[in-house]
Amino acid sequence: NSTSHIILVARAKVLTIDTMNPTVKNAKYAVRGPIVARAAELERELNEGMKKPFDEVIKANIGDAHAMGQQPITFFRQALAICSYPELLNDSTFPEDAKSRAYRILQSCGGNSMGSYSASQGIDSVRQDVARYIERRDGGVPSDPDNIFLTTGACDGIMTMLKLLVCGEGPTRTGIMIPIPHYPMYSATLVELAAVQVNYYLNEEKCWSVDISELKRALDEARHYCNPRALCIVNPGNPTSQVETRQCIEDVIRFAAKERLFLMADEVYQDNVYGHGCRFHSFKTVLFEMGPEYSNTMELVSFHSTSKGYMGECGFRGGYMEVINMDDEVKAELTKLLSVRLCSPVPGQALVDLVFNPPQPGEPSYDNFIKERTAILSALEEKAKLTEQVLNTVPGISCNPVQGAMFCFPRITIPEKAMIEATEQGQQPDVFYCMKMLEEAGICVIPGSGFGQKEGTYHFRMTILPPIDKLQILLNKVKEFHQKFTQKYS
Amino acid sequence: NSTSHIILVARAKVLTIDTMNPTVKNAKYAVRGPIVARAAELERELNEGMKKPFDEVIKANIGDAHAMGQQPITFFRQALAICSYPELLNDSTFPEDAKSRAYRILQSCGGNSMGSYSASQGIDSVRQDVARYIERRDGGVPSDPDNIFLTTGACDGIMTMLKLLVCGEGPTRTGIMIPIPHYPMYSATLVELAAVQVNYYLNEEKCWSVDISELKRALDEARHYCNPRALCIVNPGNPTSQVETRQCIEDVIRFAAKERLFLMADEVYQDNVYGHGCRFHSFKTVLFEMGPEYSNTMELVSFHSTSKGYMGECGFRGGYMEVINMDDEVKAELTKLLSVRLCSPVPGQALVDLVFNPPQPGEPSYDNFIKERTAILSALEEKAKLTEQVLNTVPGISCNPVQGAMFCFPRITIPEKAMIEATEQGQQPDVFYCMKMLEEAGICVIPGSGFGQKEGTYHFRMTILPPIDKLQILLNKVKEFHQKFTQKYS
Repeated sequence: NSTSHIILVARAKVLTIDTMNPTVKNAKYAVRGPIVARAAELERELNEGMKKPFDEVIKANIGDAHAMGQQPITFFRQALAICSYPELLNDSTFPEDAKSRAYRILQSCGGNSMGSYSASQGIDSVRQDVARYIERRDGGVPSDPDNIFLTTGACDGIMTMLKLLVCGEGPTRTGIMIPIPHYPMYSATLVELAAVQVNYYLNEEKCWSVDISELKRALDEARHYCNPRALCIVNPGNPTSQVETRQCIEDVIRFAAKERLFLMADEVYQDNVYGHGCRFHSFKTVLFEMGPEYSNTMELVSFHSTSKGYMGECGFRGGYMEVINMDDEVKAELTKLLSVRLCSPVPGQALVDLVFNPPQPGEPSYDNFIKERTAILSALEEKAKLTEQVLNTVPGISCNPVQGAMFCFPRITIPEKAMIEATEQGQQPDVFYCMKMLEEAGICVIPGSGFGQKEGTYHFRMTILPPIDKLQILLNKVKEFHQKFTQKYS
Repeated sequence: NSTSHIILVARAKVLTIDTMNPTVKNAKYAVRGPIVARAAELERELNEGMKKPFDEVIKANIGDAHAMGQQPITFFRQALAICSYPELLNDSTFPEDAKSRAYRILQSCGGNSMGSYSASQGIDSVRQDVARYIERRDGGVPSDPDNIFLTTGACDGIMTMLKLLVCGEGPTRTGIMIPIPHYPMYSATLVELAAVQVNYYLNEEKCWSVDISELKRALDEARHYCNPRALCIVNPGNPTSQVETRQCIEDVIRFAAKERLFLMADEVYQDNVYGHGCRFHSFKTVLFEMGPEYSNTMELVSFHSTSKGYMGECGFRGGYMEVINMDDEVKAELTKLLSVRLCSPVPGQALVDLVFNPPQPGEPSYDNFIKERTAILSALEEKAKLTEQVLNTVPGISCNPVQGAMFCFPRITIPEKAMIEATEQGQQPDVFYCMKMLEEAGICVIPGSGFGQKEGTYHFRMTILPPIDKLQILLNKVKEFHQKFTQKYS
């Protein structure tokens, strides 16, 4: 009969969940996990006219600025349009600086077309512009275009570097130190690479800062079962939004140097700093200020992206990494590894160029560019403050200041009864909480367990990106939900 | 002294060639290897005014159409410009069909911006358009948008599928059957994944076609030392440019079904067919024509790209794969794996949409689109014929018909004395030959050993993409070089 036939067919498959790559299966990535899938389902149901306790699903799960209504920076898009369709070089409605930037990019492309492959490391002139940007940012510390690698978003760079670092078996297997809580691309990649994840906990009591004694604890314990070789620092933090002090960065560098760790600095939120008295210090500047003892030897790679900051151009998948003091032979291997994928997308490379070589005073687009950028960054600052302030008015929610990046990561108290019901349903308490928030309030946030958190503590990550009026509504809904939830399970 | 200091510093590095990931180190990728690096160097030297026996370096190493002067298709670039800068929707100089396509794409983007992340699998409406294209191509065989995954070029899809397939250790380690000669992205990826590469040889005497008895030989031998689970077929071939017959494809499917192999069909050159009597048959059509015994069970994935065909838009890194009969749980794992990278570049996704939903009869851009496409494809056909014809006039070179794709892969006779000199220099004979061709004639081609070849035979891969007058010069230079080389070493 047909049932047994179907079973037979299913059995015959070559590739099944039991015969697929186990490391892929074991990887977890909550930012696009079951809660997000359920959110998409709810959206479809709403569109089909089903009744829900809410009119729309607010997807606060991901740092996706344009999806939240943020408008692109005009200059970037004008220049990208010209790069796509160079006939626009003759269009008098386009400003001269957008034309000259686009022209320079096209001159650096094979056949003057974004449709040709670039060098594996990225277009030469783009890497030159990135290097000059870094020098300006770091007060003159030199940057060599040969140390710049253009990547497909920052995550491509991070994954590539992690891949280079992994070797050994058993107790000599490479260990990589990552913060907890952390952006789960790190843990997912480490599982895929069968590397050992070495957790160090950020200090929630001190605004999620990095603690050197905790680094030392984590490292010493890890040395019993693996070979820790690299330390990842995310500054400003994701999901924890802290901005590390200059002193902290110096201490981290000293620690990494002493313990012989390769430093990976994820600095994609460097333009997103809002906290009172906070300032972004690049690892590279601090390294060079510490003198040649450090700056001549310490291996450091810094990652940046066009997806965050004020531009929020996630879809273009632009990014770069700068490698400092990397062994020349390893650098050649890195280039080879990248070459198998041929090159990162050229429109993303073009965008990298524009972002790091924006309009200058006196150029026709300058005033409008500054106006647009300032408006976005001031609004983000306002949203960061509003978020912290509203959430801290809710009993059972406590939220560290949102010093930077694009997220809050409040701690939540989950009543005992809710914990029991969660366990009965086979869910972690914070997953249970976030699923309820989605079903009852239409708000999609990611449970803290997706990022890692101290045992017995619960959090969620929510983006602060919605327009301020919508964010206000969102925060009020969170507040209302939390109160109802607490009441129900008390 | 300073020397010992430098040695000390070098010794102190965490990441060295000896401590990096050995699988990365072992991977080879000749298409961008030392010959290409030397070509770039020669170009710089020419630019600096150094005297060479040639005026320019012709990079015939890679299928990069725009770099060779091919112009982009106007319609695609107009629509992409509008997607980048939607103000152009109001520009009366842009045709209405470009506007309507761009508008539809933007409507499918979060916040109507290419700057937002798409779903990990790709934009819904793009996947719908791809599915409809496949149905048209395959004479009505149904295609489900849920089976379409948008990728960052085809290689991203191929790497991802290979990653899914790899498991086991020692004699149960996954083996993947690949053609020899083959595009080295396959072998490089297999090394990275520590999978077992199972070689089957294409039949040079029969125009590089796939031979079932050779598949059987390779499979039976491999079963002694690994678990062969997938069979990769590249049709039209790269670097070998053969177009498989319908009968061959049917035989391959029967073989794969009988031997329980997952089929991977690399069909990125499906629009590049020039050979007399040759036609592209998709694996999927043949599979469905073979009836439900095959079409209901056989696991197949087909890869396609926007980098080849008539559009040649390599830089945008657009591509898709269609999975047939994939286990649902595996499909969910595939989506999760892709989600860690968030999404493929949205401009590339937009281009995928345009390529597979091009202007239709009656639309304003239709005539010009057909004119541009036809011009490119007829020129390619002419170049394919010219290449075969000229190369076969050279004693010591024999070249199969260039039935499809973008390359010729002629066999070359290398004189005994040249072999000896190559060995003395520690080079493979064909590397020695190609390096000489570069240094003496300024022509950059890739030695056959980079793709694999039967022992004792030598080849090189050269693209046929240069404009016809330049290709004529290129072929004459190859001829002249080969004659001089043969003379010198005879």
